[in-house]
Amino acid sequence: MTPERYQKFQQVLNRRQLDLTVITEDVHKPHNFSAIIRTCDAVGVFAIHAVNSRSSMPIYNQVAKGSEKWVACHTHTNIESAVSDLHQQGLKVYAAHLSKQALDYRMIDYTKPTAILLGAEKSGVTQKAADLVDGHIIIPMLGMVQSLNVSVAAAVILFEAQRQRLAAGLYERVHLAPDIYEQMMFEWSYP
Amino acid sequence: MTPERYQKFQQVLNRRQLDLTVITEDVHKPHNFSAIIRTCDAVGVFAIHAVNSRSSMPIYNQVAKGSEKWVACHTHTNIESAVSDLHQQGLKVYAAHLSKQALDYRMIDYTKPTAILLGAEKSGVTQKAADLVDGHIIIPMLGMVQSLNVSVAAAVILFEAQRQRLAAGLYERVHLAPDIYEQMMFEWSYP
Ligand SMILES: C[S@@+](CC[C@H](N)C(=O)[O-])C[C@H]1O[C@@H](n2cnc3c(N)ncnc32)[C@H](O)[C@@H]1O
Ligand SMILES: C[S@@+](CC[C@H](N)C(=O)[O-])C[C@H]1O[C@@H](n2cnc3c(N)ncnc32)[C@H](O)[C@@H]1O
Repeated sequence: MTPERYQKFQQVLNRRQLDLTVITEDVHKPHNFSAIIRTCDAVGVFAIHAVNSRSSMPIYNQVAKGSEKWVACHTHTNIESAVSDLHQQGLKVYAAHLSKQALDYRMIDYTKPTAILLGAEKSGVTQKAADLVDGHIIIPMLGMVQSLNVSVAAAVILFEAQRQRLAAGLYERVHLAPDIYEQMMFEWSYP
Repeated sequence: MTPERYQKFQQVLNRRQLDLTVITEDVHKPHNFSAIIRTCDAVGVFAIHAVNSRSSMPIYNQVAKGSEKWVACHTHTNIESAVSDLHQQGLKVYAAHLSKQALDYRMIDYTKPTAILLGAEKSGVTQKAADLVDGHIIIPMLGMVQSLNVSVAAAVILFEAQRQRLAAGLYERVHLAPDIYEQMMFEWSYP
């Protein structure tokens, strides 16, 4: 490995955020899931959570640009397990969900430990998931079509989180524990 | 047509922004182009511009959710014609482009007449286009992968524009001239 490559790994690991994540609920289309994980890499998400009731593994395509190597994906077979795992880790879970009680997505403080739940392209966030989470958030829609593409919605919210975390200096201190840091460095260096 | 449908058309036409648009430079993948036009609908873009050097028409798929009906698309066979058309209309054109001189995308005043130029997935914005525009803008990347999916980059910038235009009250007055307004209402009502 070149020294430049090692430095790049350090720079990226130094900024990884353990307490900012995404849960996808049955987001199956490879181009959607791939674009989401690529965006997660860009905002410094350490790991994401995929709930797949139909299949066991998310499928990536070239849209991911290899980001599945840099962002771990934990799979869950049901939404309860995903939400309760994150609640136990002290995260608030907000569903990106076009409901009556949804708040404008900019009203959330994303410098706090936060997970964003995203729903399937056709059916959206399930009622079960909508009931389990700590709140609903919405991106204002001013046109004819009711919803955004799911990877677009994910990005708009995650870059608001990135903006807030940049302003709060959260990318300027290391969040990973030393042992995890070493392990990641090892995994990234020797594929 | 139901009165509710007519009201919806009015509401959407009342908010359409003539002076906020997108130019895509050889963005061919249907899921990318479709997600971009769907986002444009949501932020109130009236019409977009597609430069297609290889094929004559952009191709939509189900990701567009029918938004190609609500947002007109002007096609150009070369980038010069697209940029000079918009310059003649008084718009500034900013390339979303990962260059050394690129400014953070939030530093732009999108309440002014603005077009955002987006490049192809593999090759990005061409040198020719980069030279023709009024400036380059970049979305901060904090991970391993160098760029975002093009429809994601478009959305992040367009929702910053939407935020600024909402704050400036630009969605509260009608921008379309009466004859265009009537024509759009006619086209939308009788497909
Ligand atoms: C295509 S949408 C689902 C549409 C579905 N028909 C519904 O009514 O929920 C897919 C997912 O993207 C996210 N999404 C799309 N547009 C959104 C918006 N304007 N605000 C918040 N989330 C949105 C949500 O997580 C949603 O479940
Ligand atoms: C996948 S990128 C192109 C990558 C190409 N290899 C390059 O170096 O330009 C496709 C388009 O998305 C937009 N884009 C992607 N990430 C961006 C970012 N971080 N800032 C600004 N624009 C971006 C640009 O318009 C770019 O041309």
